[in-house]
Amino acid sequence: MADPYARLLELFGEIRALEGVMNLLEWDQEVVMPPRGVEARAAHRSTVAALMHDKLVAPELGDVLGEAMAGPAGDDPWRAADLRELKRLRDRAVRVPRRLVAELAHAGSLAQKAWAEARDADDWSRFAPHLSRLTDLRREEADAVGWENERYDALLDVFEPGARAAELEALFTTLREHLVPVLEALREAPRPPEAGPWLGSFATDGQDRLARAVLEVMGYDFTAGRLDTSAHPFTQGTGPGDVRITTRYEEGDLRTGLYAALHEGGHALYEQGLPADRAQHPAGGAVSLGIHESQSRLWENAVGRGRPFLGWLQPKLAEIWPDHFRGVSPDALYRAANTVQPSLIRIEADEVTYNLHIILRMEIERALVAGEVTVDDLPALWRDKVDRYLGLAVPTDREGVLQDIHWSLGLFGYFPTYALGNLYAAQFHAAAREQMPDLDDRLARGDTAGLLDWLRRNVHEAAALYPASELCVRVTGKPLAPDAFLGYVREKFGAVYGVTL
Amino acid sequence: MADPYARLLELFGEIRALEGVMNLLEWDQEVVMPPRGVEARAAHRSTVAALMHDKLVAPELGDVLGEAMAGPAGDDPWRAADLRELKRLRDRAVRVPRRLVAELAHAGSLAQKAWAEARDADDWSRFAPHLSRLTDLRREEADAVGWENERYDALLDVFEPGARAAELEALFTTLREHLVPVLEALREAPRPPEAGPWLGSFATDGQDRLARAVLEVMGYDFTAGRLDTSAHPFTQGTGPGDVRITTRYEEGDLRTGLYAALHEGGHALYEQGLPADRAQHPAGGAVSLGIHESQSRLWENAVGRGRPFLGWLQPKLAEIWPDHFRGVSPDALYRAANTVQPSLIRIEADEVTYNLHIILRMEIERALVAGEVTVDDLPALWRDKVDRYLGLAVPTDREGVLQDIHWSLGLFGYFPTYALGNLYAAQFHAAAREQMPDLDDRLARGDTAGLLDWLRRNVHEAAALYPASELCVRVTGKPLAPDAFLGYVREKFGAVYGVTL
Repeated sequence: MADPYARLLELFGEIRALEGVMNLLEWDQEVVMPPRGVEARAAHRSTVAALMHDKLVAPELGDVLGEAMAGPAGDDPWRAADLRELKRLRDRAVRVPRRLVAELAHAGSLAQKAWAEARDADDWSRFAPHLSRLTDLRREEADAVGWENERYDALLDVFEPGARAAELEALFTTLREHLVPVLEALREAPRPPEAGPWLGSFATDGQDRLARAVLEVMGYDFTAGRLDTSAHPFTQGTGPGDVRITTRYEEGDLRTGLYAALHEGGHALYEQGLPADRAQHPAGGAVSLGIHESQSRLWENAVGRGRPFLGWLQPKLAEIWPDHFRGVSPDALYRAANTVQPSLIRIEADEVTYNLHIILRMEIERALVAGEVTVDDLPALWRDKVDRYLGLAVPTDREGVLQDIHWSLGLFGYFPTYALGNLYAAQFHAAAREQMPDLDDRLARGDTAGLLDWLRRNVHEAAALYPASELCVRVTGKPLAPDAFLGYVREKFGAVYGVTL
Repeated sequence: MADPYARLLELFGEIRALEGVMNLLEWDQEVVMPPRGVEARAAHRSTVAALMHDKLVAPELGDVLGEAMAGPAGDDPWRAADLRELKRLRDRAVRVPRRLVAELAHAGSLAQKAWAEARDADDWSRFAPHLSRLTDLRREEADAVGWENERYDALLDVFEPGARAAELEALFTTLREHLVPVLEALREAPRPPEAGPWLGSFATDGQDRLARAVLEVMGYDFTAGRLDTSAHPFTQGTGPGDVRITTRYEEGDLRTGLYAALHEGGHALYEQGLPADRAQHPAGGAVSLGIHESQSRLWENAVGRGRPFLGWLQPKLAEIWPDHFRGVSPDALYRAANTVQPSLIRIEADEVTYNLHIILRMEIERALVAGEVTVDDLPALWRDKVDRYLGLAVPTDREGVLQDIHWSLGLFGYFPTYALGNLYAAQFHAAAREQMPDLDDRLARGDTAGLLDWLRRNVHEAAALYPASELCVRVTGKPLAPDAFLGYVREKFGAVYGVTL
């Protein structure tokens, strides 16, 4: 009889190919699709989603998976990881009805358009019925999958396998309890930094040159990707040979485009660095969104907002905009890149306040999924939490509850992975600096090869060989904790603001 | 029991959605995909092709089709057309093994890349093994499908349902026998027109403005499409709401970009004009590639190279390039747009010689499929036929046997539909002029609405309600014949060249 593991990889290859197709359908919709294509696209997405589901629940796949798991385990850890990952995906899929999968994809496509229109018109009522429908469908999905402590766990698990809301709550509470006093201390600082050097008038073509130069220096492979613009920057790949980035430019603020490129570039390096010969394997993909986000945040913040890298960047800026940057020292650039200021928009938030944006989103979606609040309550709930955590009044829903695309795709349980990413990033960064004492010197010369190599070996090439929590212990010697992140924040912002934190 | 026809439409909806996905995968590969994405793309395409096949041969579809055909026919001609179309697609699919479908899509993806490299390097040997493999696979497919007179018929039938090579040969022989003397007569003409006014130095942004202005005036809906550039211009749609055009610009020759826009615009108007409420029906798509091509050729040649339209165009050209076009009269422009000159490249051929390019391709691929020649014979065979039909020596394979993308996708039987398109176009154009005596006056004012409306009502909205041959009789009162085309050629070029043809 044929090797069941070999047959399993063959069958999974089709699922992976459909995943790549699905990613392309989404990229295309956000970047190039004409407006009237949305109806057909909803049909494309629901059809492909349903077919992926069919493949995952197919009896033959169950049979060969069972045979492979019953056979001798051998000593190939990748084989074990492939079986573990596929079992996880399949166990979930068999509990969810096909109809629900297709409906979710279809409703998400239409809701995405409704959300964009609602946001542009600052009109929650246009989006509310779509969100209500998506909430019902996701709740139905969670109940079909099953859960122990709370329904939200069943959704979180898609993005961060093994994570539980109660544990994240404990982690995030510690985080909030430490960050709020930090924020208060920074507010009292006598000489806070100002963003001035990053503000001005920067033509798009110069910003595009800058983004490309930064991506090149990071090691992003343009023959295996491309850079476009879209309303919200994102990274979408169809395999290690095709990982696309989008960014957006703001004429008045150079940080928007620069840090989007660093952030999405970090995501893309992870995808381009996944083991190419395992692209068709269940364990050959990203292990979790928390780990994915750790890569984007590490490049965006630890590298991109760090003094060494900004020392390398300053002459590049002065080359493109000589009048503006000739007189700006690297130190001034560094201080200006690290202003802390509560703000309304998550993706523009600084490193100290960012996690508060995530915490309030998780609280809201957890309550929504639990049925404690309804879609109609969300705008007011949002205003209330922004007031309490960030001390700001929300003037419009567009700068509030309508700002993010995620809920329009029914992605409940996705936001917490952003905060996890910040914590993983800090812990990885600390380990990398410890193991490479000359890391900062190299970054100051624009030499990122050592860091990328370290990430490739430790994180990218591991793909989903180990669960995220285990990967963290293997790479850093410790389970995930807020310490590294809080230590980093205290050290960096204490110095920038000239206060003791 | 549920209505089998309703269930059939539901099942076919998934097939249509996958067709849209397949089209997008191809568009993306030609227009935006990064080079290293090709391996993953081959997997995407073979997976989606195999799934389409699965859906088409699924027992449930066979059952409901059988039930629907056995039930009362009713008097809805669309229902009958849907059943006829679906039966045709399914009857073919059930004979072709799934493995072959996936292999063909996979081999085509890789061959496409090899062809582009071979063409760039002018090196037939790089492409030959791929073409050899595709030929084997297509021959296997034809034999699986079955054929009566010759194997080639089984391939032709995919693109022009019901057409037979022997009949086309008779049609094309008549065509060639009349065109060769016309060509000789034009060669003797004392004052042949020259292309001069179209040649110069035309920046891409101006050409892009021109293409968009022309597409707008044709009635192309940019909210349901987009214009990009690619190595070979093409039109690809995922449904009436998303029909994309590509073109290419040559700085030295304005005709390349202008006539590509008119040509692809004609294809796109057909797709955008298909009945939107029948997009998911078997008979709701294009009826045949010959009819599809009739729409592109009608706009490109009958309209775009006609005196009325060029009268409208002249001031637009003078607006974008005042120095170049201010002194060029509409008559001069018209003469310059209608030079006849045997040439090496099909897509640049004039209306008189174009069909000879098609005839030689059909002869070659017919012999290849029959096994009378091998892939290795093709470069020499090509040179020989170009010498005999066009009187030209082929200096490089890149300007010869490697010029077209079609064979790299295994598309044998596709080329003849181009010549059919020319004949259909001429017959439709003659009918439209007869029914709209003021057509030329309207085109001279840039008013294309009457023509588009006529095409919408007679051709686009009919989709595949009738077979192509029947559609032709319904629209023009006559079966397809070379008369209208030959009459058009004689009248137009006789006048332009000042000779009696």
